[in-house]
Amino acid sequence: MSNLKFSREEYAARLHNVKSEMAKRGFDVLLATEPSNIYYLTGYDAWSFYTPQALVVSVDAEMPIWFGRLIDAASARRITYLSEECIQPYPDSFVQAADRHPFQLLAKLIQDNGWADKRIAVESDAYYYTARSHEVLARSLPNARLGDSELLVNWVRIVKSPREIGYMKEAGRVAERMMSRAVEMIAPGVRECDVIAAVYQAQIAGTPEFGGVYSTSPPHFGPDERASEPHAVWSDQPLRNGIPRSPD
Amino acid sequence: MSNLKFSREEYAARLHNVKSEMAKRGFDVLLATEPSNIYYLTGYDAWSFYTPQALVVSVDAEMPIWFGRLIDAASARRITYLSEECIQPYPDSFVQAADRHPFQLLAKLIQDNGWADKRIAVESDAYYYTARSHEVLARSLPNARLGDSELLVNWVRIVKSPREIGYMKEAGRVAERMMSRAVEMIAPGVRECDVIAAVYQAQIAGTPEFGGVYSTSPPHFGPDERASEPHAVWSDQPLRNGIPRSPD
Repeated sequence: MSNLKFSREEYAARLHNVKSEMAKRGFDVLLATEPSNIYYLTGYDAWSFYTPQALVVSVDAEMPIWFGRLIDAASARRITYLSEECIQPYPDSFVQAADRHPFQLLAKLIQDNGWADKRIAVESDAYYYTARSHEVLARSLPNARLGDSELLVNWVRIVKSPREIGYMKEAGRVAERMMSRAVEMIAPGVRECDVIAAVYQAQIAGTPEFGGVYSTSPPHFGPDERASEPHAVWSDQPLRNGIPRSPD
Repeated sequence: MSNLKFSREEYAARLHNVKSEMAKRGFDVLLATEPSNIYYLTGYDAWSFYTPQALVVSVDAEMPIWFGRLIDAASARRITYLSEECIQPYPDSFVQAADRHPFQLLAKLIQDNGWADKRIAVESDAYYYTARSHEVLARSLPNARLGDSELLVNWVRIVKSPREIGYMKEAGRVAERMMSRAVEMIAPGVRECDVIAAVYQAQIAGTPEFGGVYSTSPPHFGPDERASEPHAVWSDQPLRNGIPRSPD
């Protein structure tokens, strides 16, 4: 419990808001697969989304169920508020296998909970909710009525709590330090990678009061001919004199 | 051309190998959506995969077609060998819109090229090939025979060229520096985030001969109670004395 970034009450309020919205849209069960949505509802943030995982939210169940890879269950136990029976890992023999898929086991979990004929919402355009995941699920749950939750959880997330705003302010202070480091480092002859190395260092070290974490994307750095490119990767070439640049 | 990390001949050989494998499996067209596969075939590595994009490979066309967001076309022009008519961007009005999807335009591109009734392979379990992407594509191309390429490109990638092995050796030298920095930094009382900040700095700065880039995942750091967790995120707490740790 001590590892939660927000109070139990705040997580309960988030879950309540998501369930209300589910009920409004006529969904009995929601499968959240967007990693940030799973994090929002449980605190789970281990780097495991490269294999299929989902959070199963039922309007009738008090707690959601974490479904993920066995080796990551230890993280789910430490960093979320979920009780042991709500942490349902699948074995490694299902990881990146051609002849089976973790969502076969997710379908079984749904069946075992009596939800196989319910109205089940999936995040159909979420990163990591692949076409194959959906096909396996639909085939394994022929009586379920699958629908698209679209950005249901994301819209709930948009209203920020005081604690969230507090973290955002901390993130703003880290971003200030990152930008200052970029300005300090940029000079003719300095390699682009050395500028970005300093920026990353500032991002992760944070401030003496609070540390930083990785971000959704790496820093984008567009000096010289790349000033018109929003998402270019830095190079290891030295910066030339008198060039435009677009650090962001 | 000067921005390519590999020779034009090497890219041509990669494309040839992928087309051969497509022909063997009975595919006329392949839609590569895995970012690393698009990079492998063209050199395109801008951080744009958070909106739908694809590389269209036809067994009959000399060059593949890059399909992506308009603002990223400038990167495609600079960092790939593709000619202008093979860079086909879609407008920003299709980005993250509820009422339309970029793959409607991808379907039109396929149609305009006379491929609407062909055997088209998709990477159905690739990250970023979402259920919605597939649904839009299938609905927009009712006469196409859609199939699963599975890991077709990934298996071609597994045979490494001398130049690739050269880059892998450089990456190995960067990884050595990262690990050395971790060993230097880890001590009782040092904050975890400061250890990882130093590791990141070493990763991006690389060596005096070549710089580093971002990696597929952030460093994982499991000291203390987290030694059993493979994908935990670091904290900003100081390290305690006499604890187990699993840096990887």
